[in-house]
Amino acid sequence: MPVKSTLYLIPSPIDGSYNSHQVPLAETERIAHLRVFVVENLKHARRYLRKLLPEVAIDDCTFYEMGKHATPESLSRLWSTMKSGTDAGVISEAGLPGVADPGGSVVSMAHQMGMRVIPLIGPGSIFMALMASGFNGQQFSFHGYLPREGADRSKKIRELESQAHRTGYTQIFMETPFRNNALLDDILKSCGSSTMLCIARAISQADECINTRSIQDWQKSTPNLHKVPVIFLIGKI
Amino acid sequence: MPVKSTLYLIPSPIDGSYNSHQVPLAETERIAHLRVFVVENLKHARRYLRKLLPEVAIDDCTFYEMGKHATPESLSRLWSTMKSGTDAGVISEAGLPGVADPGGSVVSMAHQMGMRVIPLIGPGSIFMALMASGFNGQQFSFHGYLPREGADRSKKIRELESQAHRTGYTQIFMETPFRNNALLDDILKSCGSSTMLCIARAISQADECINTRSIQDWQKSTPNLHKVPVIFLIGKI
Repeated sequence: MPVKSTLYLIPSPIDGSYNSHQVPLAETERIAHLRVFVVENLKHARRYLRKLLPEVAIDDCTFYEMGKHATPESLSRLWSTMKSGTDAGVISEAGLPGVADPGGSVVSMAHQMGMRVIPLIGPGSIFMALMASGFNGQQFSFHGYLPREGADRSKKIRELESQAHRTGYTQIFMETPFRNNALLDDILKSCGSSTMLCIARAISQADECINTRSIQDWQKSTPNLHKVPVIFLIGKI
Repeated sequence: MPVKSTLYLIPSPIDGSYNSHQVPLAETERIAHLRVFVVENLKHARRYLRKLLPEVAIDDCTFYEMGKHATPESLSRLWSTMKSGTDAGVISEAGLPGVADPGGSVVSMAHQMGMRVIPLIGPGSIFMALMASGFNGQQFSFHGYLPREGADRSKKIRELESQAHRTGYTQIFMETPFRNNALLDDILKSCGSSTMLCIARAISQADECINTRSIQDWQKSTPNLHKVPVIFLIGKI
């Protein structure tokens, strides 16, 4: 017997601003009836919901943590609540739940229980980077984080470069912000001088800057990416 | 000398409704100053802008067509206009410009001319399908359209299934709506019974329906996908 409740996937602003104007009005209206949330970070999710839904008493809402803070007990309470017909929303730390962010396992469980799953419209830095790169958006791969170790990482970068040239698929990847400069250094050393690299930094923040240049051009003028959120793309134009 | 103008990438509703409430207010405010647009479909773009910016006289705006309707002359007029300091916006038929949609070549030219490129927040059916699938969103590949011919298509489907099992990367693809049933038929014949398939149909439309099930379960109850926009995903949960 399918469960008659719905799990909404709620994007959140990627710039940490809690700017509710980044969420379409049509989506805010769909979120307004929810009182149960599954969240990555309790404090940030509450702050975001206060901005998004000023008319709702957030203290009366129920929150379940997912990811590393989730316990089997709390998730089983969530499913009991939903089985009784209550809708819930998933909010990850920034951007789209389940895309380079927690949320996927909650969604897959909802499918297994026969619930309806509805994704809402919102910002996703991977896709905004892809749009703005000018690279092939008909075929692409996202690899998440590359290996941390220098030799493994260089090997992986050369593999991605070769795939971009051979298959035409845009290759998208990222790094934790404090290791961005080391990754960029490795890319500039490992790739051919005519290979095209897009560096999409601080997407949707005031100092956003997205540029697509050859490795040779980046070598001449190398940006400082320390502690800035960056999406890297290797592709063909 | 870099050009001091900006190319904005403007998502449009994917349900064909011209529903401006699907666009975040913060983004509408950034679009409001634009009077020059590069568009995939002139009639639809004008109708969408009329809904989005009722205070702007759309007939006073200048439109350049991209994709198959673009001429070298019209694009060269666009670049002259932008070189003189005028910002412009790119609008594709539905969803995100440059992602499974035209726009990429205009963006890559803008980068070559040293312009700033700014992607705006909006709906993208590929990413909404990925969020809602419950599959791996840390690593995934989008393949666009599969081969049309039966034998080539079955071979490609088996390759994607094998990649999903071997690498854990979610495999995302699509088909023109009038061939969806033939593609689904091929998937159900080509894949192993325990392989997981997400069918994300009519995303952001009233009859949206996104389900992740095993091939075996889909075989028992096969939906009619004729002429409905669908994103298909093969993955692991």
